[in-house]
Amino acid sequence: MGCLLIIFDGLGDRPVPFFSNKTPLEAAHTPNLDFLASKGVCGLMDSIGVGVRPASDTAHLSIFGFDPKKYYFGRGVLECIGLGMDVRNGDACFRVNFGTINSKKIIIDRRAGRIDETGKLVDSLNKIKLSTGIKVIVGKGVQHRAGVLFRGKGILARVSDADPHEENKPMLSCKPLDGFVEARLLADSVNEFVSKANAVLANHPLNKKRRAQKLLPANCILLRGAGSLGEIPSFRQKWGLSASCVAGGKLYKGVAKLVGMKVIDVPTATGKAETDFKAKVDAAVKALKSSDFVFLHFKGTDLMGEDGNAVGKKDYLEKADRHLGVLHQLSKEHLIVVTGDHSTPCELKAHSGDPVPIVFSGRGCRRDHVTHFNERDCSTGALCRITGLQVMNEVLNVLGRAPLYGD
Amino acid sequence: MGCLLIIFDGLGDRPVPFFSNKTPLEAAHTPNLDFLASKGVCGLMDSIGVGVRPASDTAHLSIFGFDPKKYYFGRGVLECIGLGMDVRNGDACFRVNFGTINSKKIIIDRRAGRIDETGKLVDSLNKIKLSTGIKVIVGKGVQHRAGVLFRGKGILARVSDADPHEENKPMLSCKPLDGFVEARLLADSVNEFVSKANAVLANHPLNKKRRAQKLLPANCILLRGAGSLGEIPSFRQKWGLSASCVAGGKLYKGVAKLVGMKVIDVPTATGKAETDFKAKVDAAVKALKSSDFVFLHFKGTDLMGEDGNAVGKKDYLEKADRHLGVLHQLSKEHLIVVTGDHSTPCELKAHSGDPVPIVFSGRGCRRDHVTHFNERDCSTGALCRITGLQVMNEVLNVLGRAPLYGD
Repeated sequence: MGCLLIIFDGLGDRPVPFFSNKTPLEAAHTPNLDFLASKGVCGLMDSIGVGVRPASDTAHLSIFGFDPKKYYFGRGVLECIGLGMDVRNGDACFRVNFGTINSKKIIIDRRAGRIDETGKLVDSLNKIKLSTGIKVIVGKGVQHRAGVLFRGKGILARVSDADPHEENKPMLSCKPLDGFVEARLLADSVNEFVSKANAVLANHPLNKKRRAQKLLPANCILLRGAGSLGEIPSFRQKWGLSASCVAGGKLYKGVAKLVGMKVIDVPTATGKAETDFKAKVDAAVKALKSSDFVFLHFKGTDLMGEDGNAVGKKDYLEKADRHLGVLHQLSKEHLIVVTGDHSTPCELKAHSGDPVPIVFSGRGCRRDHVTHFNERDCSTGALCRITGLQVMNEVLNVLGRAPLYGD
Repeated sequence: MGCLLIIFDGLGDRPVPFFSNKTPLEAAHTPNLDFLASKGVCGLMDSIGVGVRPASDTAHLSIFGFDPKKYYFGRGVLECIGLGMDVRNGDACFRVNFGTINSKKIIIDRRAGRIDETGKLVDSLNKIKLSTGIKVIVGKGVQHRAGVLFRGKGILARVSDADPHEENKPMLSCKPLDGFVEARLLADSVNEFVSKANAVLANHPLNKKRRAQKLLPANCILLRGAGSLGEIPSFRQKWGLSASCVAGGKLYKGVAKLVGMKVIDVPTATGKAETDFKAKVDAAVKALKSSDFVFLHFKGTDLMGEDGNAVGKKDYLEKADRHLGVLHQLSKEHLIVVTGDHSTPCELKAHSGDPVPIVFSGRGCRRDHVTHFNERDCSTGALCRITGLQVMNEVLNVLGRAPLYGD
């Protein structure tokens, strides 16, 4: 008996007037998710806490049972690991965007027109040497995204972002955070790297080609989310379960790798709204044959929420649900948990601190009155309102693998 | 106005197919418990935390408002106190089984055929003197159970169990736990005692008689759960309430004595499934005349759960309920709280981390929509989901005795 945990990113939402004030999930026809609800226990889940607005990284760590207060090493670490970079203890990792600056060095696009062909740019940047003696390595991400890590003696990842996080602003100089004078060497290395990288990018043949095609050039590099890997137990050490991950997005693979999950390669999983649902579900079902715990991630709900596309979010949920018929059979032998990492209300086009619905269904589960999987119905369920850090305790409990507290 | 707290041990359960996926409590006809539910507020309670699988000792401590992280001194202490032994600060206490070993010193029965006549064995063991100068005292328990305490200068109860907890294994040598070299004297004393005790038992007349009767001899003694009494306030000091306990099982009497409750002797209370419900309820009702708080414990639900006997668990609950008619009258003047210490699902035959239903009913209580006392209905109640450590706060609140927080 194992556990399949399905996370719909940004699942929760707020009332949508077009749906008579139902949320996209309340409006969606999702008979397979409803089947799970009717055979299990439902509730609401705050991945961090009531009213706290989680990012996807901290939310996933928390749901996997790793308190982000202790084990969140910064987004840069997770991105670099997710990109498959060889992150070592002591490396300073950054999350990176390729962006576009004008002649006055003002950022006019933080995503360089969502450029999708950065391989040659990354190769060029990897040739840069720094006068500080610190080694710098760049890893290619999806679209405009990349990772950068700095390696060498005496660096400390306590520095500010070189990214102003807004357009129509100049790039920022990277600085040691207040009280961390030892971070000066890293800040200097970052600033030297950004300066040399922007010079390389300005004259790169690819950007010349893009300008000729009236496309925005990727002529600047924006570093943010500095962090260094810290001590962290593996998922298996912490919960006694072997674990696998099926996801498209690099971040989710990064969190999974960080805690030692086996990341299963599904070439047609995109991490976008258009993805290969069937291949992902098939891979997760197969993984459950050799892993105690399988994490299956769907990104589209979050992307639709960030676009404010309520109809798209509803359609995505219905499309995903049509591929979940296998859960009827699977839940006879296994525990199935479905939830989100946070809410991304279409009205806000951003994450919110509203809780997400959660269902525990299948072998070993209690049952409650709830028959539909959505925000409103799950709020009346027998799980009541739990936190992300409680999810794995409940998983172990249902699996009959919880240690006895006392004697 | 006082409070009667009724705890059904191992009350909660999981869906039972034979009961159309109801739990034993959901399937049971319990009009008196339902009366309480319909006149009070219901909810679910995790005695330790969501998904945490509690033992009975830590669960009861928590429900009485004593955080087991701070006040759990090991099962040995509670057992010895429960047996009426004179446990003093510094004594090292163990929980003990009489067992059966074969000629190769392999344990073939950890309960010596559930022997029920150990008085003379205990008397013989109490004559043993140790070369370490440490005094050893044995206390008789129910059936194969006993308690042993070691008293003397320089002992520290940080030692491993001499009991392998499994049959077809050899007995273990007692050792200091990692990092506790000061526990060597106790470990040596335990090993010397076990060796001498087994020698005494091997040739004991009672065992010769048992062998002649083709019964398993009680020819070994298994020590586990080492612990020493620590500082702990009394129930009255902590909550300002005088308290009494009506229970059959030694452990429950032990927890009650530990926190200074008056343990009321009900000679016909057995701590087994067959018990004198009427005498226990009568004793509790009477105790409520002179105590602010009365704890009434029923063990049968847990025993039925551990036997996987769902029909037996349902029948036991119905039988108990028939003796609770007095609560209609009693709840006019007093607060009645009914709950479990943990779940013991028949499917698992073991404790689980599933929450238990809880009702606060009677004078001073709010009311909610719930009209039946069981897992599913209580999950929709106004108490929502609380923890064991919150129970006494709510008791004080309903009694109008909660201190003002602030000024």
